[in-house]
Amino acid sequence: MFSRAVANATGNVIREILKLTQQPDVISFAGGLPSPDAFPGEELQEIAAQIIGKYKNEVLQYGTSEGYLPLRQFVAGWVKEKGIEAEAADVLIISGSQQGIDLLGKTFINPGDGILLENPTYLAAIQIFNVYQGKFNLVNTDEQGLIPASLRAAAEKSTNKLVYLVPTFQNPTGTTLSLARRREIAGMLEELGLVLVEDDPYGDLRYSGDPLPAIKAYDQQNRVVYLGSFSKIISPGLRVGFAIGPREILGKMVIGKQTTDVHTSNLSQMIIYEFCRQGLLTPHIASVREKYGRKRDLMLELLDKYFPEEVTWTKPEGGLFIWAELPQGVSSTELLQEAVKEKVAFIPGDCFFPAGGGENTIRLNFSNASPEEIETGISRLGKVMKKYLTCIQKK
Amino acid sequence: MFSRAVANATGNVIREILKLTQQPDVISFAGGLPSPDAFPGEELQEIAAQIIGKYKNEVLQYGTSEGYLPLRQFVAGWVKEKGIEAEAADVLIISGSQQGIDLLGKTFINPGDGILLENPTYLAAIQIFNVYQGKFNLVNTDEQGLIPASLRAAAEKSTNKLVYLVPTFQNPTGTTLSLARRREIAGMLEELGLVLVEDDPYGDLRYSGDPLPAIKAYDQQNRVVYLGSFSKIISPGLRVGFAIGPREILGKMVIGKQTTDVHTSNLSQMIIYEFCRQGLLTPHIASVREKYGRKRDLMLELLDKYFPEEVTWTKPEGGLFIWAELPQGVSSTELLQEAVKEKVAFIPGDCFFPAGGGENTIRLNFSNASPEEIETGISRLGKVMKKYLTCIQKK
Repeated sequence: MFSRAVANATGNVIREILKLTQQPDVISFAGGLPSPDAFPGEELQEIAAQIIGKYKNEVLQYGTSEGYLPLRQFVAGWVKEKGIEAEAADVLIISGSQQGIDLLGKTFINPGDGILLENPTYLAAIQIFNVYQGKFNLVNTDEQGLIPASLRAAAEKSTNKLVYLVPTFQNPTGTTLSLARRREIAGMLEELGLVLVEDDPYGDLRYSGDPLPAIKAYDQQNRVVYLGSFSKIISPGLRVGFAIGPREILGKMVIGKQTTDVHTSNLSQMIIYEFCRQGLLTPHIASVREKYGRKRDLMLELLDKYFPEEVTWTKPEGGLFIWAELPQGVSSTELLQEAVKEKVAFIPGDCFFPAGGGENTIRLNFSNASPEEIETGISRLGKVMKKYLTCIQKK
Repeated sequence: MFSRAVANATGNVIREILKLTQQPDVISFAGGLPSPDAFPGEELQEIAAQIIGKYKNEVLQYGTSEGYLPLRQFVAGWVKEKGIEAEAADVLIISGSQQGIDLLGKTFINPGDGILLENPTYLAAIQIFNVYQGKFNLVNTDEQGLIPASLRAAAEKSTNKLVYLVPTFQNPTGTTLSLARRREIAGMLEELGLVLVEDDPYGDLRYSGDPLPAIKAYDQQNRVVYLGSFSKIISPGLRVGFAIGPREILGKMVIGKQTTDVHTSNLSQMIIYEFCRQGLLTPHIASVREKYGRKRDLMLELLDKYFPEEVTWTKPEGGLFIWAELPQGVSSTELLQEAVKEKVAFIPGDCFFPAGGGENTIRLNFSNASPEEIETGISRLGKVMKKYLTCIQKK
């Protein structure tokens, strides 16, 4: 009865687990949610009323699929900070950057077409490319992100249309692609016949180290589509992101968008634009960075204090996630069941591996919980781990 | 390079024409836009500020893919008016009812799968099902809408998964499926192995005649997915619609939505809900009906006055469109070129025919233009038609 696209789709494991852990007494490091105290509520409240009052006919009427022109112009100027040269015509407004992945899947992928992925990679990207029945080919990564020689080897061994990357503060691992590799990868796309999807929802959330230009900054070959988002720096509930890419590709994405949601909510677009126009974005990002930076430091400190010796973890310079590895043979899904009994939750890492593996890994989010919850939750999780590891060793 | 889904897609003809006719001195009957004076701007302005003030953390945070629960509950109650029995769990909030068509295409259609369509039918539905590479099988219609015997014949002659209908104030023709046919069609779906998509964005905009229950009201066999929208009765710019259907189907649509835009803008959903909760929806619909009803009457009167004798048109009891037929052999696309020179625009009807035909038809929108513009525009269009028909006869 159903199409092959959805017949075997089982929904987002993370969202299902999130439902289980939504009892108020469970401390959850599972989601990728911003912290409520990082929402600029008062400013947005005032702006929303202003916008509808002043631009009623424009806000409430149909808009263009490409997006609200002043916002596209703002984005084109703003991304200069990341080394990206763009005009408004190079920018498509989308309903969250995830819609960009979906539109690119629709634009490029016939069933069986190859897609190169980091291993592990963003769960929703795996699910989206599965809907389009793409074939996954995996590329190796290390602590500096994707390894260019491995990309070349994988691209030469199989036929692929896309390579999908989260190069900065990766989800789930938190690692960042080095500058040299950004240049190198941008320079090999034409030769390898690839379009690169640079998914960058976390790039502005840097807490230490020096900012790096986007891969798109080195896109001499015009083969990179950059996806950005206001979800992590203003609000995810408004659903506004953007794609910047070659106009021929954007043109196809616009058609895909026309036939999906026609356009992104005008009210959301115009609120985001007005927030930016009033100069509120940069100071707000600074305040979010400070909040989340302190939480990252705190969680890293507590991992040292409470986690068993056998466990290792990444020390990300930004983003929302820490990635931990337990001894081989441990099942983090089993561990989660024990953890939930003790009122603490995380995401088992195996769901981020497109071809299986990673059963001994976990992803921890540090943005959403309060400092007190982080202290209590990590202490609980450390105890659960120690008990669980002892149990395993006895077996 | 591109997928088969978009390789031949050329974008929405209507949107492209709309761009050409956006000069302020062109009177356009081309789009399907609500009238700006039908937007409840002041109420929405106040509500938007209230919502963000009161529910900041809920509005600005991620929401569930199924939609804002109070809005789902409201919708479940509200559709009782249309004879539909539903609970919140039967309702999925979508980013405009058009997203529902897209999610149903994703849910059901493998390349080559059959879809039964009215002829003519809604342009975007043709485009969406084309993206999923469905095969169109056409069903005959008359002034009472789709003919059940023709549906049966078409379904028995070819294999189909879906039948897509706009049963009330159809786009583009304005006709309405009769009560007897609603019952009959609902009763034959199981036997024919079909799921029916009942697209109903205009149902609340009735200006004369008696309201009819939805086809979904007779859905004993649980095979109808009803798509509704707040675009035409509150605002299209907020992008909020809903789907009501069998839970197994909604479950697949939710997965499709998770991988596209995660969820519909919380702010849009909560504004729409609050507008409804405050009891503003029913009186607002009444005021929109009154405005558009007068415009329909005016346009019908002016068509009598200005259009050449050889032209005939529908007299819809509601909705946004009148459908006119010119003599055989006339090209309404040629006519449009002449019309635009005289600063008036419409949509050539042929784009609504999935398999060609209808070159002598046009669609006229009466909701967007002011009464003065309708008077001037129809007078201009009548002159252009007379001149064009005279020209043709001379050839």
